[in-house]
Amino acid sequence: MSIIQPRTLSGFMELLPARQIQFDRMAAIIRESFSLYGFTPLDTPLIEASEVLLAKGGGETEKQIYRFTKGDSDLSLRFDLTVPLAKYVALNYANLAFPFRRFQIGKVYRGERAQRGRFREFYQADIDVIGDGKLDISNDAEIPAIIYRTFTSLGLKRFQIRVNNRKVLNGFYAMLDLTQKSGAIMRTVDKLEKIGAPQVKELLMGEDIGLTEQQAGEIMKFIAITGSNDQVLSALESYRGRSPLFDEGLDELKTVARNLAAFGVPEDHFVVDLTIARGLDYYTGTVYETAMLDHPEIGSICSGGRFDNLAEYYTEKQLPGVGISIGLTRLFFVLEDQGYLNDQLNTAPTDVLILPMTGDMAPAISLATTLRSAGVRTQIYGEDKKFKQKMSYADKLGVPYVIFLGEEEIAAGQAAVKNMRTGQQVKLSPADALAMIQAGLKELNQGAPILDKGV
Amino acid sequence: MSIIQPRTLSGFMELLPARQIQFDRMAAIIRESFSLYGFTPLDTPLIEASEVLLAKGGGETEKQIYRFTKGDSDLSLRFDLTVPLAKYVALNYANLAFPFRRFQIGKVYRGERAQRGRFREFYQADIDVIGDGKLDISNDAEIPAIIYRTFTSLGLKRFQIRVNNRKVLNGFYAMLDLTQKSGAIMRTVDKLEKIGAPQVKELLMGEDIGLTEQQAGEIMKFIAITGSNDQVLSALESYRGRSPLFDEGLDELKTVARNLAAFGVPEDHFVVDLTIARGLDYYTGTVYETAMLDHPEIGSICSGGRFDNLAEYYTEKQLPGVGISIGLTRLFFVLEDQGYLNDQLNTAPTDVLILPMTGDMAPAISLATTLRSAGVRTQIYGEDKKFKQKMSYADKLGVPYVIFLGEEEIAAGQAAVKNMRTGQQVKLSPADALAMIQAGLKELNQGAPILDKGV
Repeated sequence: MSIIQPRTLSGFMELLPARQIQFDRMAAIIRESFSLYGFTPLDTPLIEASEVLLAKGGGETEKQIYRFTKGDSDLSLRFDLTVPLAKYVALNYANLAFPFRRFQIGKVYRGERAQRGRFREFYQADIDVIGDGKLDISNDAEIPAIIYRTFTSLGLKRFQIRVNNRKVLNGFYAMLDLTQKSGAIMRTVDKLEKIGAPQVKELLMGEDIGLTEQQAGEIMKFIAITGSNDQVLSALESYRGRSPLFDEGLDELKTVARNLAAFGVPEDHFVVDLTIARGLDYYTGTVYETAMLDHPEIGSICSGGRFDNLAEYYTEKQLPGVGISIGLTRLFFVLEDQGYLNDQLNTAPTDVLILPMTGDMAPAISLATTLRSAGVRTQIYGEDKKFKQKMSYADKLGVPYVIFLGEEEIAAGQAAVKNMRTGQQVKLSPADALAMIQAGLKELNQGAPILDKGV
Repeated sequence: MSIIQPRTLSGFMELLPARQIQFDRMAAIIRESFSLYGFTPLDTPLIEASEVLLAKGGGETEKQIYRFTKGDSDLSLRFDLTVPLAKYVALNYANLAFPFRRFQIGKVYRGERAQRGRFREFYQADIDVIGDGKLDISNDAEIPAIIYRTFTSLGLKRFQIRVNNRKVLNGFYAMLDLTQKSGAIMRTVDKLEKIGAPQVKELLMGEDIGLTEQQAGEIMKFIAITGSNDQVLSALESYRGRSPLFDEGLDELKTVARNLAAFGVPEDHFVVDLTIARGLDYYTGTVYETAMLDHPEIGSICSGGRFDNLAEYYTEKQLPGVGISIGLTRLFFVLEDQGYLNDQLNTAPTDVLILPMTGDMAPAISLATTLRSAGVRTQIYGEDKKFKQKMSYADKLGVPYVIFLGEEEIAAGQAAVKNMRTGQQVKLSPADALAMIQAGLKELNQGAPILDKGV
């Protein structure tokens, strides 16, 4: 038979067992965190009718979409979790209670150019709150507060949530009579961290955008407003009264900043940042990005914002919302790449490996049942191998405890428990063995999945 | 703007929030159960290179496969979790410890003809144990024992795991010199429950298969062997000595039956059933099916078996294994359809809904933080709505507890907690409120997700 070389597609993350356990542990903490805030889990299909998924037109995304036909159907793989949410809410409107709070952790697909750290199949972890007709601004503050709690639970420390408001930006451009050019200006301003202020100003006055020296100067002055949140908000007050949209946005931004503190987010973990705009014209109010302070080069690890109308392509109903999305696969890649993963936590597939030393499996099965009933993951090693090979198996898996059940132990109703990290071996009754193992595992599993040296 | 009618593709399960929570609870129990037996989680891509995924040739499955091109790549969606496992093990052979025990719960894709209860996107929940060179027969008994524990944890009672051995069948056909026709015969025998014995015999003697009266009689006599497991195994002893393959299979079957009892599976939950063959020629030894006793019409809800060589298309290494797969989406559909889902369990997205009755959110946020820290899912209702609308929201979600925080409660450092099931309302300190709610939730969440009336 001819052998096909096994391979995994480029841009598709496939982890070795220990890494997978680390990934799953992070996903579990995120799920738990989102649940604690009263978000309900959804699990929508990965495939949708292209007509439905691309109702809006994919824009820049469209050429990245995995689109194909099956029989007579024109199908596409989802490229985010927001469009499927819009479809879901429009479709199930009558059966949902609003505000509708949902989270979804799922894979999405984008056929991007393959390069290191870029994925074509990747997890997003999203929360969104959808209102019926309107949605209170307090939600705009709660969303980043949830992200703060979630990242903190994961062990991440040196991160910062950056908040802005599109109404402030759009209002500001309206003051300068630059509304028509605001898209191009914002895309240029977005390059600030990459190319620096002088270069941005030059681009603004270049042929493509064509601002006057004075207009460009106004913009550079505006985006140079920095400092503490209070300082930034005060500086913005000096623009008040020239655009109703700006004033509305400023009020929202002030409310969000005030509430973020009330929600328990420390001042050093969120900043009002006037350079944040988000590429998508989808957002209409508050916008968020999240930076890893020690790794500005990786860009935002969690972004989102407020939108006026989630499902305008599917329903006449006005469904405003606010949401945010963690790019989980990319985040995991970066954490691994930068040495942030806490490798001290247990990544063995089992907590205990029982080695039956006699032909009779019954005592091993009985002990395993006791351990499993108490939540201790237990594997019985049933292969006919030499002792050395069995121990090498335990070593390779990194199993914390090995239990030997020889004739002597069985006769005495005991188990010989070996702590594989210390090498210590003791004979104990099943109950005492369980207690010792549980205490040891508790110690082994404490700590967060991310080891962030910072702060 | 023109509205696109939102829809979900036919054959794709998309659940309302309460049902999704029930589904997720089942999946979590299965994951927990598999983990307790020392299986490590994997999460392989949904898309593979067609050349890799279809190395074996898809056979009957091939026309159901979602296959498409993206750029220059010929891609396919996985149609099961076994082929990706084979690829994974071959690819990562050097980094894995054998026996390699993995579970995977993931979606797979088959473009079947759409009909009620048939899905094109569905979850499989698989466990497999892969050996390097050889794998002990004790694994063949442990696999159904794990399934027994898993289904029991879910609350399922009236189910039966049916075990057979392909070597027994193939050995038997060898005795009758019918090895060439064994495939056709087994496919016909597989219809026994549907069409009855006389019809099966007629088909066996029909033009297509062409057995003699005597041969067909032998087969009918063989598959009529029923009774207790001991009776069936004794009856099989009378065939011993006529085929080495048969004898080997019988020894394995006896070992599996004996070990199944040792693994704690009650005799009424597993039977040796000589009519089980499994369609795939993939299996080479033990085979399993699992029937819901009150719903024979739905077929097997969990099937699998022993295979000699997992990854022969990808590597020269001999990698025998044994595994089983739960068809989770279909099982959930049947459970819902037949009224098995335990609707008494909490399916609200939040345990507590806090209604701040003053303009100040701070007391609500503080109380919510206390509750969440103790694992109680808590939502603060921040919308500016009438009291009646807020309560109707809580009712629609089925929230177990609502907490009112008015000026009076805030001043007294208390919370007014309403149990929405009993209507009872009490004022308590945050600590007492937490204790009462935790006790109530514990009661509310006890019980399994499946309510099986039987036995």
